[in-house]
Amino acid sequence: MPRSHSTDIDGLIQLLAKLPGLGPRSAKRAALDLLKKRESVMRPLARTLEAVATSVDFCAQCGNLDTVSPCHICSDPRRDAGTLCVVEDVADLWALDRSEGYKGLYHVLGGTLSALDGVGPDDLRIASLVTRVSEGTVQEVILALNATVEGQTTSHYVADMLSETQVQITALAHGVPVGGELDYLDDGTLTAALNSRRGLED
Amino acid sequence: MPRSHSTDIDGLIQLLAKLPGLGPRSAKRAALDLLKKRESVMRPLARTLEAVATSVDFCAQCGNLDTVSPCHICSDPRRDAGTLCVVEDVADLWALDRSEGYKGLYHVLGGTLSALDGVGPDDLRIASLVTRVSEGTVQEVILALNATVEGQTTSHYVADMLSETQVQITALAHGVPVGGELDYLDDGTLTAALNSRRGLED
Repeated sequence: MPRSHSTDIDGLIQLLAKLPGLGPRSAKRAALDLLKKRESVMRPLARTLEAVATSVDFCAQCGNLDTVSPCHICSDPRRDAGTLCVVEDVADLWALDRSEGYKGLYHVLGGTLSALDGVGPDDLRIASLVTRVSEGTVQEVILALNATVEGQTTSHYVADMLSETQVQITALAHGVPVGGELDYLDDGTLTAALNSRRGLED
Repeated sequence: MPRSHSTDIDGLIQLLAKLPGLGPRSAKRAALDLLKKRESVMRPLARTLEAVATSVDFCAQCGNLDTVSPCHICSDPRRDAGTLCVVEDVADLWALDRSEGYKGLYHVLGGTLSALDGVGPDDLRIASLVTRVSEGTVQEVILALNATVEGQTTSHYVADMLSETQVQITALAHGVPVGGELDYLDDGTLTAALNSRRGLED
């Protein structure tokens, strides 16, 4: 079969298709778009990918991604080292921190327990969480895992592992999302919101 | 505001968000995914982007993207130099060539005429098409532009420009897509398919 484009471009398309959110077709579109924006996007992207791959790494303490370890959050003296928020993923950490409603520190587990995917406790940063909490500074651990079956299973496991320490363990509240319409909510959320109802003076 | 992640990562997210198909949120997800697959995807992607940006360029004759100019298609002696297929974009060229139903050469216009976007005839590779056809080898020009208003306007303009040459000008047939269900087709397509109906012995 005569080749309509070079194997170089094919290689680029195949690598782009590995990005989450891009399939084979959109990867081809992205490759063509990049070749049209060679100096403004393509080369800067190549340089940035290489630079970030070298400069950014996981924070040894909390598991966040940053150019320094401990990361900017862990080394920020204005943050409350007595509160630790446990999240599944770095993206969750960023989402919570963007809300600016939390001023404590974080601990990224790196996933959830999953028998199906073969993810056991040793594959997550649970041991380092127990060690961190055992050191005595932390007074409260907020379990902020996703409200999925895997997230809640992991939540229970982490709570069990921390039960021997004297730390207070809390979890995110379930309820109606701010701005959410009741009609569009699932039954589980509505039941949780009803069960956790509170006095108006709160 | 305390930073939850470094400006390096922000720069990467902003560049990834410029890819078609990725928004700010999916770009963040892609950046996190890349940082987890640093050696298997991130660094190879950086190297490939740089390599392709250097090695691949537009074919001076047809406008295809390739590592050589004239490209593999233009320099293939098995192809019929008497037929020229005019397409809007390199992606269209690849799509047509993938079908393997066409053995002639191509000419990429690089877009469509658009008063709204300020794209005039001089912004497209129309002059080089006329020159190429005037040289005498080409006997048939197939206009394979998209069946959009812009595509068809451009099609008419190109046909006008070529009218002084003795070349035969044809266009892609409109009709029912192979495997398509009539119920899901728009009225325009159905009308075109009816008007272009043919005897069963064809």
